Amino acid sequence: MNITPPPDPVTTLADPGTPFAVVDVHKTLGNIERLAKRAERLGVALRPHMKTAKSLDIAALMHDGPPCPVTVSTLAEAEAFADGGYTDITYAVGIDPHKLPRVVALLRRGVTVRVLLDSSEQAASVAHAAREAGLAVPAQIEIDCDGHRGGLEPDAPGLIGIGRVLHEAGCLDGVLTHAGESYFARTPEEQRLAARNERDTAVTAAERLRAAGLPVRTVSVGSTPTAHAAEDLTGVTELRAGNYVFFDLVMAGLGVCRVEDLALSVAVTVIGHRPEHGRIVTDGGWMAMSRDRGTAGQAQDQGYGLVLDLAGNLIPNLVMSAASQEHGTLTTRDGADLPDLPIGTRLRVLPNHACATAAQFRGYHVIDSALTSDAAPAIQADWERVTGW
Amino acid sequence: MNITPPPDPVTTLADPGTPFAVVDVHKTLGNIERLAKRAERLGVALRPHMKTAKSLDIAALMHDGPPCPVTVSTLAEAEAFADGGYTDITYAVGIDPHKLPRVVALLRRGVTVRVLLDSSEQAASVAHAAREAGLAVPAQIEIDCDGHRGGLEPDAPGLIGIGRVLHEAGCLDGVLTHAGESYFARTPEEQRLAARNERDTAVTAAERLRAAGLPVRTVSVGSTPTAHAAEDLTGVTELRAGNYVFFDLVMAGLGVCRVEDLALSVAVTVIGHRPEHGRIVTDGGWMAMSRDRGTAGQAQDQGYGLVLDLAGNLIPNLVMSAASQEHGTLTTRDGADLPDLPIGTRLRVLPNHACATAAQFRGYHVIDSALTSDAAPAIQADWERVTGW
Repeated sequence: MNITPPPDPVTTLADPGTPFAVVDVHKTLGNIERLAKRAERLGVALRPHMKTAKSLDIAALMHDGPPCPVTVSTLAEAEAFADGGYTDITYAVGIDPHKLPRVVALLRRGVTVRVLLDSSEQAASVAHAAREAGLAVPAQIEIDCDGHRGGLEPDAPGLIGIGRVLHEAGCLDGVLTHAGESYFARTPEEQRLAARNERDTAVTAAERLRAAGLPVRTVSVGSTPTAHAAEDLTGVTELRAGNYVFFDLVMAGLGVCRVEDLALSVAVTVIGHRPEHGRIVTDGGWMAMSRDRGTAGQAQDQGYGLVLDLAGNLIPNLVMSAASQEHGTLTTRDGADLPDLPIGTRLRVLPNHACATAAQFRGYHVIDSALTSDAAPAIQADWERVTGW
Repeated sequence: MNITPPPDPVTTLADPGTPFAVVDVHKTLGNIERLAKRAERLGVALRPHMKTAKSLDIAALMHDGPPCPVTVSTLAEAEAFADGGYTDITYAVGIDPHKLPRVVALLRRGVTVRVLLDSSEQAASVAHAAREAGLAVPAQIEIDCDGHRGGLEPDAPGLIGIGRVLHEAGCLDGVLTHAGESYFARTPEEQRLAARNERDTAVTAAERLRAAGLPVRTVSVGSTPTAHAAEDLTGVTELRAGNYVFFDLVMAGLGVCRVEDLALSVAVTVIGHRPEHGRIVTDGGWMAMSRDRGTAGQAQDQGYGLVLDLAGNLIPNLVMSAASQEHGTLTTRDGADLPDLPIGTRLRVLPNHACATAAQFRGYHVIDSALTSDAAPAIQADWERVTGW
């Protein structure tokens, strides 16, 4: 006699303890496809930035065949992606010379890891490390297009000298710029101008190096807003963006995506009611959402996030307006009545900044909104994140 | 022939890759001792909150003999501390009924875990779980003393009913309140008043329950500011505080501690200079510091943090004024000249909010400033943090 065991109960978003991070793979795929098509139309390679999702499983959604080129924000990411078979990596944070041995170790494994720098001290360190190791340490010179952070201005007197030091050690790969100020470009026109400026600046720097007889292979530009706004990338060889895999309320506020494109949310549970204060309390505080309040400076401040039911439908007028470590406070906008959400009700909160919110978790519970409109969507997979440095 | 191996080189703060979290055990011990003496003087038990350090090693500094009573902010902490031999635990976040099976599992192991609640729905869930499990689930009723977050006001009509439901199931342990608004009490006098109000509110609620014939064993109060300001805790049985083990710039801004008491810092490395923008760039961004900007609302905004040399000496006028994911921006105050900090220089940054900054790391490199004034202090130990929920 055969006894057929009962089928395993399906695990849904109603099951794990809250708070936890939810990724909707359907939305993620839509976001990935949209930018892939853009890059194709613009005639540039895409080098997605792993700093947002930090997930080999999400990276795998970006390519059918062999691993794609990737950008990383830490050497821990570089090492994890190298372990996962990725061999074409750009570490897009100015290199601390102390970290060069880890870069060399990856290069010795046959993994191309490009480093970034904007000073003659760093160039000398890279050249020295390359000579010591007897191999090339491919390096890009960071170019500043908008005063946001690091980099050399394209007409900086030191540019050619740095290029020469790198070239003489066999290490000059190219130039890289990042339009960090595009996060504050509030109209499509400002975003187009930021994209044009980002391209122009990178190409100008590349041309200066070439005019000095220095070979420039890579001209790399990108940020999520400019990647979605660029109209002409002549002279650019590759486009970078990271946030777009998930998007978030900051990007929706900039008009780079719609709120319904947001692929990352945090599942929380109602643990209290304070009707006299117009307040619902949840178990998702800043430990779950992060302290990022990127929409505070936008036209529409979204507090710590907008609130969905567990199925993913936006609850009108409800916003997570305050947070302590393990408590979230939900209030309504415009004096709307509080919805009826009893103790134990599960909700999902859309974050201000996907990079910061995702970083509060060790992994994602993955759903697919194309497969279900159930009140508690089934969990299709659990995906890990790379953590640390 | 004996070959004596060379002694292991001492690992110092100059060795691990940055960014990383540094705990000065000497300062931590000083902070722990200060509050322990206060609690003794006030005649109350101390139940330190593990939510800040989340470390069994730091908890071990708080007691000589058997494990002390602890407060936790997640069940992951409760489970980790139970595994570490702690048997007297208060989980001080309103209970999600879905989490009761994990509480019951701990109770079955002989670990006392008290839950918190402020509604009749939660009280019914706790009573039901206790009856199903055939054991008491000790519960405290959360009392709101300042409108900060959750809890029942001490004169709330529902208080007695909730107490009765719990008592009939053998679950009523007591009352708990937290003066969350004390973080905004800017003078010693305001902090003393917040502490008095916190005590009065908790004791009033306890007396109401007792007057209704309900036994109240525990009357628990606390926050780091009120714990350091309270003058009289008559009627209170225990004091809670968490942040004080490390303290931070918010607490220094409130005058609860001095900047030199801060025991947690983040080691970072200089990776760039932008003198034309008055800026030094480091490899410690918000991923390392968190997005917490708690001092933004204080009289002295400290940006993302104050800057020390690696030995721990404050660098005058230097402040971490901006952050992106893996980049920190240092600027000077009052038009002071930028200090000479070459590429590769290691620094330490004191955070706004120790709870949030510590949460960005999996553990701490531990130094002891009583043992050394070396430029690169020796690492005495590596201590892990509890993560997740």
